[in-house]
Amino acid sequence: MQVKDLGEFGVIELLNRMVISQRTGPDNGAAFSFGLLVDSGDDTAVWETSKARELFTTDTMVEGVHFTRETTPWRDLGWKSIASNVSDVAAMGGLPTYALITLGLPPATEVNSLEELYTGMLELGNRFGVAFVGGDMVRSPVVFITVSLTGIMKDEPMLRTNARPGDLVAVTRDVGSSGAGLKLMQGFPVETGDTADYLRNCHRRPVPEVAAGQLLVKSGITTAMDVSDGLFDDLSKLTRASGVSARIRADQLPVHQHVRQRFPDDWLELALTGGEDYVLLFTGPKAGVDSTLTSLGEGAAVIGEIEEGEPGHVAVTTASGEEISLEAHGWDHFL
Amino acid sequence: MQVKDLGEFGVIELLNRMVISQRTGPDNGAAFSFGLLVDSGDDTAVWETSKARELFTTDTMVEGVHFTRETTPWRDLGWKSIASNVSDVAAMGGLPTYALITLGLPPATEVNSLEELYTGMLELGNRFGVAFVGGDMVRSPVVFITVSLTGIMKDEPMLRTNARPGDLVAVTRDVGSSGAGLKLMQGFPVETGDTADYLRNCHRRPVPEVAAGQLLVKSGITTAMDVSDGLFDDLSKLTRASGVSARIRADQLPVHQHVRQRFPDDWLELALTGGEDYVLLFTGPKAGVDSTLTSLGEGAAVIGEIEEGEPGHVAVTTASGEEISLEAHGWDHFL
Repeated sequence: MQVKDLGEFGVIELLNRMVISQRTGPDNGAAFSFGLLVDSGDDTAVWETSKARELFTTDTMVEGVHFTRETTPWRDLGWKSIASNVSDVAAMGGLPTYALITLGLPPATEVNSLEELYTGMLELGNRFGVAFVGGDMVRSPVVFITVSLTGIMKDEPMLRTNARPGDLVAVTRDVGSSGAGLKLMQGFPVETGDTADYLRNCHRRPVPEVAAGQLLVKSGITTAMDVSDGLFDDLSKLTRASGVSARIRADQLPVHQHVRQRFPDDWLELALTGGEDYVLLFTGPKAGVDSTLTSLGEGAAVIGEIEEGEPGHVAVTTASGEEISLEAHGWDHFL
Repeated sequence: MQVKDLGEFGVIELLNRMVISQRTGPDNGAAFSFGLLVDSGDDTAVWETSKARELFTTDTMVEGVHFTRETTPWRDLGWKSIASNVSDVAAMGGLPTYALITLGLPPATEVNSLEELYTGMLELGNRFGVAFVGGDMVRSPVVFITVSLTGIMKDEPMLRTNARPGDLVAVTRDVGSSGAGLKLMQGFPVETGDTADYLRNCHRRPVPEVAAGQLLVKSGITTAMDVSDGLFDDLSKLTRASGVSARIRADQLPVHQHVRQRFPDDWLELALTGGEDYVLLFTGPKAGVDSTLTSLGEGAAVIGEIEEGEPGHVAVTTASGEEISLEAHGWDHFL
């Protein structure tokens, strides 16, 4: 059955039933997100607020631009569309709370596909205590998914503007795995085995670093962002926002053995420019970063330091200090 | 210059400068919306919350589905994209606070058009104290605009589920003017004169009923929604949500003289099925509704009453009690 057979209101009712029946139990955001007073179905959702800081972000995926159905099945698309938003909240040090989902759909979209999409959304959302409280569904010649998400925190949010010369630069987890998964699917779509499974899963099911974000804030870290467009580009954005430059060491980048082994010639490029890893990139004085790293999981590592210099410039060097030339890839939708 | 010439980040910077330089001064939402701690440009926006109720809504407009460039210039499109969201907040009785804007754009979109779009958004937003705090911009084969908006209130929100048999049904302003404006532009695109100006303006620049929503809540009204899809359809939704039916009187509908005079054969259909008037539809016991009406402006009127019966059924009768047959138009995107 297609969307045009069931109709807008029929589809909305079906998806709402899925959301309500699978609504999250107690989890990360639960302490905050169960102040819900008015659920989806009215003019707006309504919840109780108390004294805190609220976070607000949105992210959109468009078919043919951000994903294709070949490399991203509907269920994984649902997962990723929520994960990218939760990752933004994690990068501030907050917990996600409420989400609205907007779907732009061709009339011939299969209803089963939307159930798959929502299954993936709920899998990721329930893991982090997100409550889905409404949205919009519209006809469109191309599939697009816009998620807007609120979050909450009591501490000081971590910003992109706080990096200072002398700060160490670190990441919470290894980088390049999602990009390696995409490269594998595009070049070797039928490859099997543990390495292929691992890399594909990294691309299709990235896990946002909510707990790591909490840990960074509690450890006194004040500068962070999530790596969605690739480490090199995102560090360039962070340093531009802070008015500083950075130097990172290629040999210190945490890159998973599956990535190094499967792509021996490309792992460095994947680590520097592959997007959608959703690790957190953070900076801070040496003592604070070092002690924070001991509490983070596998892959967390210092990768370089912040320097005075042209805002936004990022130099990449080898262990021997030789500079590696790297073009800014700049994931710009329109250039 | 087109978006593909300036690039994503260039366009974002340009539009952000517009937003910051024209950010609203003290207005409706100002008491709430100036707790902003982190503006657009970081992973998320951040603001302070206190003990209150927060509202959350989203609405999307797609080119060729919700608008065409012939009947809706870019500046009016900006106005309407914010107005439809503010109207949802008004229908709960709240004040709008923070908005995120997502733009889906073909690369050949003129940058001037986006400046026009944002001018319209800021005109409406500033009038009601909305602070624009970020968003997303993506490449898309078709223009779409998704706005997500938060709001705030201290009182009990008005719901669609509270209508009870015996309640009077009322509207805060006259209906059908926006639909008449659209009909005029589609059939008589070059018509001039006061009537044409008035009707076109009603379609292009609808004003959400924020003050009326506040007044309803303060008057003890507990049931309301905004009329975006047409009075008949929206009253049908309200009565379905409340498990009741309704009877409205065609001769009691407030319809502006310009609509009656310009469309003597169609004014009733326009009043019942024309969308995007953004008046508030509300119900309540006679004493409360009557006293509320005296405080509302021109056009506010009782139009019928709530009855026991098939949930969602709406009967329309003449002054002499004769029933008018009306097909549910049902603005369904996919049927």
